[in-house]
This record gives sequence, structure tokens and C-alpha cells, in this order.
Amino acid sequence: MIIDKLYNRIKERSFVCVGLDTALDYIPLNMQEGKSIEDAIFNFNKEIIDSTCDLVAIYKLQIAHYESQGIDGLKAYKRTLKYLRDRDLLSIGDIKRGDISSTAKMYAKGHFEGDFEADFITLNPYMGFDSISPYFPYLESGKKGVFVLLRTSNEGAKDIEYLDVNGDYLYNKVGEKLEEFGKSFIGECGLSALGMVVGGTHSEEAKEIRDKFNNTMFLIPGYGAQGAKPEDIRTYLENLDKGVVNSSRGIITHYKKFEDGNENVGKYARQAVVDMIGDISGK
Amino acid sequence: MIIDKLYNRIKERSFVCVGLDTALDYIPLNMQEGKSIEDAIFNFNKEIIDSTCDLVAIYKLQIAHYESQGIDGLKAYKRTLKYLRDRDLLSIGDIKRGDISSTAKMYAKGHFEGDFEADFITLNPYMGFDSISPYFPYLESGKKGVFVLLRTSNEGAKDIEYLDVNGDYLYNKVGEKLEEFGKSFIGECGLSALGMVVGGTHSEEAKEIRDKFNNTMFLIPGYGAQGAKPEDIRTYLENLDKGVVNSSRGIITHYKKFEDGNENVGKYARQAVVDMIGDISGK
Repeated sequence: MIIDKLYNRIKERSFVCVGLDTALDYIPLNMQEGKSIEDAIFNFNKEIIDSTCDLVAIYKLQIAHYESQGIDGLKAYKRTLKYLRDRDLLSIGDIKRGDISSTAKMYAKGHFEGDFEADFITLNPYMGFDSISPYFPYLESGKKGVFVLLRTSNEGAKDIEYLDVNGDYLYNKVGEKLEEFGKSFIGECGLSALGMVVGGTHSEEAKEIRDKFNNTMFLIPGYGAQGAKPEDIRTYLENLDKGVVNSSRGIITHYKKFEDGNENVGKYARQAVVDMIGDISGK
Repeated sequence: MIIDKLYNRIKERSFVCVGLDTALDYIPLNMQEGKSIEDAIFNFNKEIIDSTCDLVAIYKLQIAHYESQGIDGLKAYKRTLKYLRDRDLLSIGDIKRGDISSTAKMYAKGHFEGDFEADFITLNPYMGFDSISPYFPYLESGKKGVFVLLRTSNEGAKDIEYLDVNGDYLYNKVGEKLEEFGKSFIGECGLSALGMVVGGTHSEEAKEIRDKFNNTMFLIPGYGAQGAKPEDIRTYLENLDKGVVNSSRGIITHYKKFEDGNENVGKYARQAVVDMIGDISGK
């Protein structure tokens, strides 16, 4: 099952998820000159991937950055996912889709098959659980997984996710239901292919959330630019193996801090990954 | 302002929103033969548009159907939006995006500019109001509008949207905040460019919702395949002018009911629109 493959990658490599949120202004000019938008984005991603793939669990592509460049951007999105697949590297399509059942089936087809095929995708539960269940056949097959938004890393998380529902946070209500569904998709590693997105920030509840959703793989954003602390992230990861920790800008634009950065994007991305593993694992 | 333009279209033409949810199996085989996927989808959409544009307020493209066909599908999405724009017809990109602020800016760029430019887009509020506010500069400009998910038309709406938050439904809490933000973007018609998606089903609360969110243009899905009743939809529309009512399959696959349908997709789509206007307006 794909969830076991991810778990093994975490064990063998690390909990790092590299966020390929490749905005055009993240790419040094010398890598853009004379190149199409598609090639510039793809080549940049390829250099990051080649320089980090033996160290990390998975790559996450935030599709908004690609959509912002229209068809050209999405061609780079497609090519990057294919490149990962061809090298047996794991991918998350960070698409956060959520819609009625007939539409969800179309999103599943779009992002678990064909041009935009990824191993995992992210989903938004606002419209309810019939917007999540159409993805279950893919989870049952063992070939695909999802991460559903639970409690996110942004300030605004408090607006809805933290609303008081009969004395408990809304996100706990959502999570309880997801955990229940997830029991049908548990791999040998003991974790479900129905994962959850839990921001590394707002860490007061880290221990409670980790204990409560014990069979759940977390996708943890918020490290780096958004300020999540290593000790909190350790709590979410338990034994450094129950989640993947995303960093995007912190890795892919690390080169900007160095005089020779423009010529060494991959080298500095790798350094950022090494630093991140040390920082979070506390070793 | 775009919201006044939409309001005027409702007054001059009707409240109908044609949902161009063009799945490949909605297109008759004679329109697919010898055609690329892009051309088959675009030509189908074009025939529907040409046959209905003098009768309807706006067109809505559910992007999942296009994403399900990968790059080819999105080329058809792009071409359909351009075709609408070139003919001064209004469009909604039904994308239901929702993400942190920096990502939301990318979605805004992607769907209010460039290849996928639409007049309105739909948004998902689960991550909180900082996932909505990045679109406000476009609303302020008067050129663009949004419809944020409030209470949707599917069964699963009860799972989260109806949760009890201090004695009120969650969707009311969300709506109150949206209505407050929306006050900054009210056009001459008295309605805000920050609209809401309110399903025509679950109609027990129709009158309450209409009265409560009085300055808000509704995008109303659920008519037709999902079973919303004409009298309830009338309540949401007030004087048949405070919202647009979407129908997708009911219009674009109406031709399937007729022996000569395959050759007359546009004609039967038009008939479905005429019938829908009569049914809902009660005239």
C-alpha cells in the first residue's frame, strides 16, 4: 500500500516533504533566460529533486503556483509529477479540492489518473463527507492516499476550524469522523491512507491531537516561513515517523541567502534539508 | 461594477446560470468523431452558448470536468472562457479554492488574470477568512466577484455546515462574517460582489437565509438533477433578481431525451432554459 511505501521512505530517508511551490520569482534569472515558462519551472524543480531525493520522504506540489501561470504552468506541473513517478519518488498534489460527489469523481480522475497523477492529494472537508468518500475506491486499491484538511497552520484557522461545537473544537469533530473512515485503509505500518493536514503552528494542542488521531499520518505544514517550532513538530511526529513535515520556501529559495546561490540552487536546497532534519529531530 | 453588470443581465435576460460541466460522455459521439478532446469540448460548449446567450445571466464552468481531461481539458476551459469574454458574456470559474494567503494570491492571479480569467470564481471558507481576503483587491477594483460556499446543496452539507455553534448553524456564523466583509463591495444594485453559494435544496431555511443576508447575491445550485423545488428557489431569489440559479446536466444533456437530439444539442439546451425560466418564475 502507498501508505506503507510512504512510511518506509520516512524511516529510510526522513520525514521531510519538499514543497515545490515554484513561483516564477523563486527561480533565479539565469535559469529563466531563454527558456519557456514550462521549461524554467520544470528545470528548477528537477534540480531541487535531483539534489534532495535520497534525503526526503516525498514532494508536494502546490498547484496554485502552477495554475497562476495558466496552461504553461500546468504543463510544468504535469512534467514534474511524471519525473517523480519515473524515478519512483512519491508525490502529493496539494489541490485542496472539495465538491459534491459527481464533481469529486472528476477531481479524482483528474488527479489520481492521467496528466496530473499524484500518489496523494489534499482535500477540503467543508462540504461534508460525501465530498470525501468518492476518493475511497482509490484508497481501497492501496495505490493512492489523501490528506484531508483538519487544523491548518494559518491565523485564520481559528475562524471556522476552532469554532466551539458542543464544547469541542470543530476540527476535532471533523477528525473523529475522518479517523473512523480511515480505519478501512490502514496499512501494515498501522497508519491509514486517509491522512490529515495538521499545521505545525497553534501547538498548544499538539499532544492531544497526536494521541487522539493515533492511526493517522499527518501532513504538517507551517515549518519555516510560517514559524512552527521543532519541539512541537516532534510531538506531532511521535517517533519522527507519523507524519511528513513540509517546507517550501525554506528549501527551494535557500539559495538566495548565498552569493553563489544562483548557480547552486540544488546544493543549497540540499543543505536546507539537512539543516531541517537536524533541527526537527534534535540530533 | 461586475455585480451591477450581473444584476442587469438577470433583469434583462433571466436568473439562469448555465453550468458547462462538460464531461466527455455528455457530448454526442457525432460531435466527438475525428476531433481532439479540446475541440470536442469547446465545440460542444460553443453550441450551447450560441443557442442560449440571449436568455441567460451567466455561464458557470465546473473546472473538475476539465481537469479530469488533463492539459487538453484545461485548454478547452481556457478557450471557452475566452469565447465568453470576447462576446461580452459573463462567466463563473467554479473552482472552490481555499488556501493560505500567499497561495490564495496565486489562485487569484490564476483565475482573475491570464489563461483562466473568469468574471467570478467560487471559494471555500474552511481555512478561515484570511483565505478569502486576498481576493478583496479584485473586488475593490469593481472588475471581479466571488461566491463563497455557505450552505451547499448536497446531503453532506449537514456534516459540517449544519454543526451547532453556540445555538446557531455553522453556516450562519460563516455568513454573518462574509456579509460584514461584503459591505465594502456593494454595487448600485444594492448587492455585494462578495456573493454566497446557497443550495436550492434543504429549503426549510430559505426565507430566513434570504432575509438574513439581504445584500448578498446568491449562486444557487441544486435545481434539476439535485431536486431543488421552484417555489423554494423563488424565495431565495426574492423578486427573481437576487441570485442566479445554476443548472448543468438539465440543460446541456437535455438533447438526450430526443430522437434527433444528437444533431440538435443547442436547440434542446435552449428549450431547457426556456422551460426552467417558466418553471421557476411560475409564469
